[in-house]
Amino acid sequence: MRLLGIKTSRNGGPTVIEQVEQYVAAHREEYLARLMEFLRIPSVSTDPEGVRDTHRAAEWVRDLLGAAGLEAELVETPKHPVVIADSGPPAGDGPTLLLYGHYDVQPAGELDLWSSPPFEPEVRDGRIYARGSADDKGQLLTHLLALEAWRKVGADLPVRVKCLIEGEEEIGSVNLEPVVREHRQRLACDYIALSDTAKLDDDTPAITYGTKGLVYKEIRVYGPSADLHSGSFGGSVSNPGNVLADIVASLKDGDQRVTIPGFYDAVRSISPAEREQMAALPFDERAYLKSLGSPSLVGEAGFSVQQRRWCRPTLDVNGLFGGYMGAGAATIIPAWAGAKVSMRIVPDQDPKSISQAFDEAVRRAAGSDVRVEIDTLAAAGAYMCPIDSPGAQAAARAIEAGFGKAPVFVREGGTLPILPMFKEILGADSLMMGFALPNCNLHSPDEFLVLEDFHAGIRTAVHLPRMLAELQTEPKSAVGDTAR
Amino acid sequence: MRLLGIKTSRNGGPTVIEQVEQYVAAHREEYLARLMEFLRIPSVSTDPEGVRDTHRAAEWVRDLLGAAGLEAELVETPKHPVVIADSGPPAGDGPTLLLYGHYDVQPAGELDLWSSPPFEPEVRDGRIYARGSADDKGQLLTHLLALEAWRKVGADLPVRVKCLIEGEEEIGSVNLEPVVREHRQRLACDYIALSDTAKLDDDTPAITYGTKGLVYKEIRVYGPSADLHSGSFGGSVSNPGNVLADIVASLKDGDQRVTIPGFYDAVRSISPAEREQMAALPFDERAYLKSLGSPSLVGEAGFSVQQRRWCRPTLDVNGLFGGYMGAGAATIIPAWAGAKVSMRIVPDQDPKSISQAFDEAVRRAAGSDVRVEIDTLAAAGAYMCPIDSPGAQAAARAIEAGFGKAPVFVREGGTLPILPMFKEILGADSLMMGFALPNCNLHSPDEFLVLEDFHAGIRTAVHLPRMLAELQTEPKSAVGDTAR
Repeated sequence: MRLLGIKTSRNGGPTVIEQVEQYVAAHREEYLARLMEFLRIPSVSTDPEGVRDTHRAAEWVRDLLGAAGLEAELVETPKHPVVIADSGPPAGDGPTLLLYGHYDVQPAGELDLWSSPPFEPEVRDGRIYARGSADDKGQLLTHLLALEAWRKVGADLPVRVKCLIEGEEEIGSVNLEPVVREHRQRLACDYIALSDTAKLDDDTPAITYGTKGLVYKEIRVYGPSADLHSGSFGGSVSNPGNVLADIVASLKDGDQRVTIPGFYDAVRSISPAEREQMAALPFDERAYLKSLGSPSLVGEAGFSVQQRRWCRPTLDVNGLFGGYMGAGAATIIPAWAGAKVSMRIVPDQDPKSISQAFDEAVRRAAGSDVRVEIDTLAAAGAYMCPIDSPGAQAAARAIEAGFGKAPVFVREGGTLPILPMFKEILGADSLMMGFALPNCNLHSPDEFLVLEDFHAGIRTAVHLPRMLAELQTEPKSAVGDTAR
Repeated sequence: MRLLGIKTSRNGGPTVIEQVEQYVAAHREEYLARLMEFLRIPSVSTDPEGVRDTHRAAEWVRDLLGAAGLEAELVETPKHPVVIADSGPPAGDGPTLLLYGHYDVQPAGELDLWSSPPFEPEVRDGRIYARGSADDKGQLLTHLLALEAWRKVGADLPVRVKCLIEGEEEIGSVNLEPVVREHRQRLACDYIALSDTAKLDDDTPAITYGTKGLVYKEIRVYGPSADLHSGSFGGSVSNPGNVLADIVASLKDGDQRVTIPGFYDAVRSISPAEREQMAALPFDERAYLKSLGSPSLVGEAGFSVQQRRWCRPTLDVNGLFGGYMGAGAATIIPAWAGAKVSMRIVPDQDPKSISQAFDEAVRRAAGSDVRVEIDTLAAAGAYMCPIDSPGAQAAARAIEAGFGKAPVFVREGGTLPILPMFKEILGADSLMMGFALPNCNLHSPDEFLVLEDFHAGIRTAVHLPRMLAELQTEPKSAVGDTAR
């Protein structure tokens, strides 16, 4: 492992950072044991029976942070508590870092599909298998243990560190925004760091600097007041199933471009630097298609797959329903039919404008022979962190220090509505430093985290406050180099 | 009631037909009691528990026909028996009539929705309410009681009458065709009469002379091997939900015309006489739309509603399904999506050619980025009885004798696959003499038959063999007049 920028102490002994590194290197076994302890708490946030366990997980986090020297408390919400902590101001001035993570986990799902019980962590082949190992307990814990390590060697954190650890991420962070609004002064920060994403592949760490937004719609088309006999009434009234198909088909053209008027108007174009970066990333088309079981790549004409997945807005049917859905034949004109259709939007598309333009396009396509209802089930903006900011560069250097390899910068097609929310309320950008593998069975049976990545994550988290403190003083122009 | 063509007997006493009429008039109460007895048998053909009841209903029919002087037997099938009966050759020669009907009934459905229990018939406001009252026990029984009445007065039937009464009509007549094929000699006939359709309205009896055919398809579009995250993978693979909508939308144009190549090639044009006939039928557009709860009439451009419902082929979505169909949002690209789509076809469209043309059009619209499976769930031809045939004229006269009003001739958008099957195997045309009301709650709670229509049906059935015998001897040119 090559460590960057480590200075020897004046007296020839190990520097503070070396001491912290030595400390974490010496406590690998203990860290594993504590990870297992954390993973054994079945803090499933959807489970109404699990309220005691989610609370226990929150207390576990609070106690760890308290023992690490931060002022830590539980902020209760209508559902699961948020842990807020603060290391207090450091000696010098420098940026403030807010660590975000979540202690709740997805439900285990079908137990039969797990090789070992989801809440009895087991190490196999260098991986720890348990619900929450990757999402997010294992990744979150790296940051908490790093804070503790600084404390253990008796050193002050080089920057002020705050924590915001919620218990409702898997149920849409329903109570987070009010908490952030209410505690916006306490949570004031320059950067937010979170580890709840993935590496590029087994060997390549990654910083995710952009996520797409989401506008999710449910369309219902109503025709006759009851299902009609298709023989007796066919040819006399509008069929909501046919009209629904017409509407959905009208939303995209043969080039897979969305036809909603104005849809692309605000789309930020892909910068030459980004194009270059993306083109440089390895992409094995055959392996990709094989892993998805799809016969071919399909998407908006004129863009590469990576550009379409990360930088271009998309529109997809998520579900279709209506009429007779059972086995065999039922000869009806259905009274209604519905579709769930969602759009992933990108900077600088505005969720509200897109939502309205969608509704107008749907109503126009529906015509006047049916009644249409449109529900908006989600509307969240895209997020993008400037990768030449000191924070993004500090994160990259910390990862290089922790993993021994510089990260790639990637974007993500998924949506994290909390990021634009943080940006709006706290004015801070988010650094997504992913330590899990892309195929870590997130939300599925046999979720895992590679143990070496867990330890590299702890080292990364040890370096992060230091890199932030150091970079803050460097001239900005020297920073861009790492960001390739 | 005005009776046509009744001749006085030579000796001045009542003619035979007068005797039969007097007999049925004198037995109204007994007939109602026997209808109730028949309706009390819960002969639900779908119900695996109901095998004893369906058998009991078949035996009840056989015994009635036996007592009426016909040679009657049960022909067993893999499921429910068919009753076959024969009156034997009459004294003179004349046409042979085959009576078709079914003793099985639809399931009762939700019992709470019935005003009185479905298998405990109750008379309210001159209607008898019970499952099977209209479909088809009540209508069938009119013919059986008429045969009995001829026997009771000691008269020979004026034509040979055979019966074919099945117990699987409500489950697609699955075992009927093999029985008809095997017994084609025994069932040989000139006309088939059945009462399983409806009057035009409360006051107007109707003969249905045409039914549409049906080609029913299930399309399944397969994309990725599992549901994919719409954020991570949107824009890179084909979405089966979108493709399904494209396919379905492509099957019809803005004029509601089916776009499948060759679809209309064999469609028989509507004759001027039919046009005139249909235009003369009462049609209240407002009342029609109100009863359906539909905002507007929609159908193939260039044709009237009645023309579209009866004479023009249609294409309708019967069901849509795939992806996430529950409440709220799930951001997936579904692995597959499906639709049930059916076409009602008309003379002289061939179900096989239409089926094949549909499949080709669907595959063409689907393209090569998805895998498509198409199942044919039904393929049956249309049927049309020449309304100037002696049989159709005899049926019209019998109805006029029974109801005191000449029937209108109508077509029907529904499908009766047994009719083209009878035509093919037995070479005989079918006379559909409907005694039920159009709003008789067929297949729904509170199914009913108007008692006066039941009795008028018995009178009609009494006259039918006589009219057939008489008309057979009239010159054909004189026949057409009733058919308006």
